[in-house]
Amino acid sequence: MPTHASDIPGYTYGSSAVQASSVTLEELQRLKLSVGLTEEDERYLRMAATVLDDQVAAIVNHWRAGIIAGIPHLARHSRNLDGSPNPEYLARSNRRFQQWIIDTCLRPYDQDWLNYQQEIALRHTSLKKNRVDRVASTTHVPYSDIVAFVAVLNDTIKPYLQAKGHSDTDVAGMHLAWQKSLHLQMALWAKTYMDLPDGSAQW
Amino acid sequence: MPTHASDIPGYTYGSSAVQASSVTLEELQRLKLSVGLTEEDERYLRMAATVLDDQVAAIVNHWRAGIIAGIPHLARHSRNLDGSPNPEYLARSNRRFQQWIIDTCLRPYDQDWLNYQQEIALRHTSLKKNRVDRVASTTHVPYSDIVAFVAVLNDTIKPYLQAKGHSDTDVAGMHLAWQKSLHLQMALWAKTYMDLPDGSAQW
Repeated sequence: MPTHASDIPGYTYGSSAVQASSVTLEELQRLKLSVGLTEEDERYLRMAATVLDDQVAAIVNHWRAGIIAGIPHLARHSRNLDGSPNPEYLARSNRRFQQWIIDTCLRPYDQDWLNYQQEIALRHTSLKKNRVDRVASTTHVPYSDIVAFVAVLNDTIKPYLQAKGHSDTDVAGMHLAWQKSLHLQMALWAKTYMDLPDGSAQW
Repeated sequence: MPTHASDIPGYTYGSSAVQASSVTLEELQRLKLSVGLTEEDERYLRMAATVLDDQVAAIVNHWRAGIIAGIPHLARHSRNLDGSPNPEYLARSNRRFQQWIIDTCLRPYDQDWLNYQQEIALRHTSLKKNRVDRVASTTHVPYSDIVAFVAVLNDTIKPYLQAKGHSDTDVAGMHLAWQKSLHLQMALWAKTYMDLPDGSAQW
């Protein structure tokens, strides 16, 4: 099971406090067909977990401090409402962001995973953002910015997948499997936003 | 300008019949920052246009006959309601699919492009699907399946980008720029689905 997961503030994967997903396992199965996720991809995701495990802090720092911090309309979502930094909020959210990398690679895509995908999406909408960390920050992260920024996650993960000396074939396999998982996740997160009473306002 | 565009059934890019997008150019600019789309990416997209131009029929055939035809819940969207083939509908839609590849690479991402992104999304929802081709087919393509299948588009475009002997650097640059554009487009299409009165039902 994922490393040190029990230490992470606000991380409730598999807990009974997580609501059941509105997406069924049958719908997930259909999405896996649409995305082309195979057993080979699942093996490559396990391989990626071993490659990324001790790099997750560096990766999230790259994303948050190296990229997001330079894009004001993204950076504000981890700050106070007046735009000032909130280092504790950022640190807590970074720990969960790190664990999400491991979960993407290591968790079986079962009911618990489906439920937690919905929880992750809810925590980016006005229904749940800020609550687990008891902060006053932006009300929500627009779905459009999440989908847009996944392009950056997909591109910048590559050198970290290359960092442990795997063959080009293995790196390409891990990278493709990672991207397929991200498309699956973007599709699942979309349901949470579309189900919001004011879904389009949180686009 | 894109090749033979005026011959394509139901293709109305830039026409006054296309509604204005509900997304503003300022919002598009913000999304370009989120996705990290640079002028270098735009140059690589122009390069990709020259590489893909004479391959678009083969590419769309690969996607439609080679992949989608084998996934019943996707294939039905280009068929009659009873599941029987509708070769004319498929052919018309394939022509537009081909032109979309060229437009992705060659069109400036301006107001006309923004408007046509909305038109493309609308034609996948119950508001406009089937209408331009006067067919009786599925009412809509779920947004989730579009996002999922873009993973396949992104993966399978790569050999076509390699087919004209460009360097690894150029191929990687064209591929990355293509993927950034697709993330931009998935983000834009999401707005159309979220704005639907029954958006979540067309997820």
